[in-house]
Amino acid sequence: MRRVYVASVGYTTVGDHWNKSILDLAVESGFKALAGAAKIKPEQLVVGNMFSGLSSRQEHLGALVANGLGLTGLPAFKVEAACASGGMASLTAFNMIRSGQIDSALVLGVEKMRDLDPGEISQALCTAESAEYTQFFGASFVSLNAMLARLYMYEFDVTRADLSAFPVIAHRNAVHAPHAQFRKEISYEDVARSMIISDPLRLLDCAPVGDGAAAMLLVSEDVAGDVNGPLVEIASAESATNRFSFYERDDMLDFAATKLAAHKALKSSGLSISDVDYLEVHDAFSAVASLSVEALGLSKRGQGARDAREGKYDCDGGLATNCFGGLKGRGHPVGATGIYQIAETYLQLTGKAGENQAKDVSVGLAQNIGGVDTTAVVHVLKRN
Amino acid sequence: MRRVYVASVGYTTVGDHWNKSILDLAVESGFKALAGAAKIKPEQLVVGNMFSGLSSRQEHLGALVANGLGLTGLPAFKVEAACASGGMASLTAFNMIRSGQIDSALVLGVEKMRDLDPGEISQALCTAESAEYTQFFGASFVSLNAMLARLYMYEFDVTRADLSAFPVIAHRNAVHAPHAQFRKEISYEDVARSMIISDPLRLLDCAPVGDGAAAMLLVSEDVAGDVNGPLVEIASAESATNRFSFYERDDMLDFAATKLAAHKALKSSGLSISDVDYLEVHDAFSAVASLSVEALGLSKRGQGARDAREGKYDCDGGLATNCFGGLKGRGHPVGATGIYQIAETYLQLTGKAGENQAKDVSVGLAQNIGGVDTTAVVHVLKRN
Repeated sequence: MRRVYVASVGYTTVGDHWNKSILDLAVESGFKALAGAAKIKPEQLVVGNMFSGLSSRQEHLGALVANGLGLTGLPAFKVEAACASGGMASLTAFNMIRSGQIDSALVLGVEKMRDLDPGEISQALCTAESAEYTQFFGASFVSLNAMLARLYMYEFDVTRADLSAFPVIAHRNAVHAPHAQFRKEISYEDVARSMIISDPLRLLDCAPVGDGAAAMLLVSEDVAGDVNGPLVEIASAESATNRFSFYERDDMLDFAATKLAAHKALKSSGLSISDVDYLEVHDAFSAVASLSVEALGLSKRGQGARDAREGKYDCDGGLATNCFGGLKGRGHPVGATGIYQIAETYLQLTGKAGENQAKDVSVGLAQNIGGVDTTAVVHVLKRN
Repeated sequence: MRRVYVASVGYTTVGDHWNKSILDLAVESGFKALAGAAKIKPEQLVVGNMFSGLSSRQEHLGALVANGLGLTGLPAFKVEAACASGGMASLTAFNMIRSGQIDSALVLGVEKMRDLDPGEISQALCTAESAEYTQFFGASFVSLNAMLARLYMYEFDVTRADLSAFPVIAHRNAVHAPHAQFRKEISYEDVARSMIISDPLRLLDCAPVGDGAAAMLLVSEDVAGDVNGPLVEIASAESATNRFSFYERDDMLDFAATKLAAHKALKSSGLSISDVDYLEVHDAFSAVASLSVEALGLSKRGQGARDAREGKYDCDGGLATNCFGGLKGRGHPVGATGIYQIAETYLQLTGKAGENQAKDVSVGLAQNIGGVDTTAVVHVLKRN
């Protein structure tokens, strides 16, 4: 198996892109990534996307984006795994290069969300859950996460203020992130007083709806010499699935897919979780961020939210986490999120993170999930 | 690179499955494939599907189907490339095994189409084309193929009767195929007199709308000894893309993606097109079947339809082609079609094709396309 590197990254700002189509966004991020390593000609395009059919009446994104980038002929396909589509697309391309099939791939995640009205976007997001069971009985993706948050608070005496920690940190981090959707600090009071979406989740507990695209060029060790810029190695990437809906699980507060994917990824990289000094977690909802750091073994069971409140996941002074704002602050264009996470980790590990730079980081871990930890993808990255 | 084998296949009948959901269909085909090689535990699930979001309000098919099959924990994702989704899913899993990443994978294609009304299904199929250009100007997927058929007839003096050949053969072959949607012969007159859908295409020029799922278990040479039944080797699988819409191409009657994918696949397998004695072509429309055999180098340019009429692609006496009826006769549940093609080739090469058995076949080629030859996937299979 060969070493695989991130050679360059490119992305759009996250937010309202009323004047850009899903293809426009994809092409913008793709050209930026290609420009970063101009000597590399990708041999494959993998596009991560969740629901372009519902949002844009557009499938066949692989060939569409290949043509948009002037790469007619290039093998191309789309990978979908709900909100883990981006991470899964990266994992797929990583494995193609690592195993010697190809030497380079363009991986691109894109989602167009703002063209949908609130009812439509709620339905589109809930396609991550079972149509026959969960959707049929009227649950929305937020209401499911609200029940999970309620259970988490009840089981571990987690307070409203504890729950607010991850959103507060996310917004603080996003202030200086040029591509973030929300570059505005919020206080614990702001979170606690924001509109109830689905009790106990309030508006500021939830990642926002936004358009965006992120891309990266991956290369094998054999062609890495053709890259002018710095490289970050993808030391490993693994995925796993959980029981489909969280209410079917023996332990509803155990993110078993994240646990399994992280275990496999760390084992494969020869590193342990204590080696990780930069972290991207999938903070789609405040309780999800807490359960994620617990599943990764970074916080004790029930302690994730409190640890965050006590500064453990601060970019400055803690384990540097979601330093561009994460899903809550940078935004969460679902099929693109997994690529934003890896692109941001690349920026951090290469010292290119500008005002968002975390200090002395050399090993990054990015956790991307689909559904309520139904699919998990974990990447481990190393400074070269 | 290691050898990859089809160890077993499973599929549903194609047609109206009003009482079965997309998950029901997927699970039915998956359990059948798993039962065919019970000692093999798949290490990966890859699902091919085009538009489950639009048809069933269901994304996240990878984890959903993994759980439906009792395979919680298994890495799983969906691959989409319009009507080539099934072939692309197979290609992806094939490469994972060939390159040594894993020893076994369950590949499954599924599409639920009949729940949509005719307007919705037309829109869903046209998501294979550009939303901003082609769809925006009111073209449907059938109308695009109708323009292509008209051009094909004009350029090469192809007659109505020539065009009818592939549909007539398809229906004749499907009569004895237990899983086919249309088990009824049709005459040249039937095709010529059937309702106009989009001139010159008539109802019987077009593959039908149907539900279906097909699955297969792929294994590496290292675990092939654990399979009790016969094996078929996937000698190669390759894909390519073309200019996105056919009207953008220098030569609109050149299926360049099929040409390129077939060239790569044959080269990689060490075989030539003259070695192929069993063929599955993507006969979504009668002119598409003709252009496909021309792109594969089996018929001269402009001669595909006439060759079919003269018996060149008969199952009995010609190059055995689409012997279970192809997309036109067996049916075309779009994301499943590429897997049906490979499963049927497996049946032919292992002598399990029953009344549909072609004589003395040992090398098969399956061509699956998305859009109007926008994406092409070609598999070459060999009897073990």
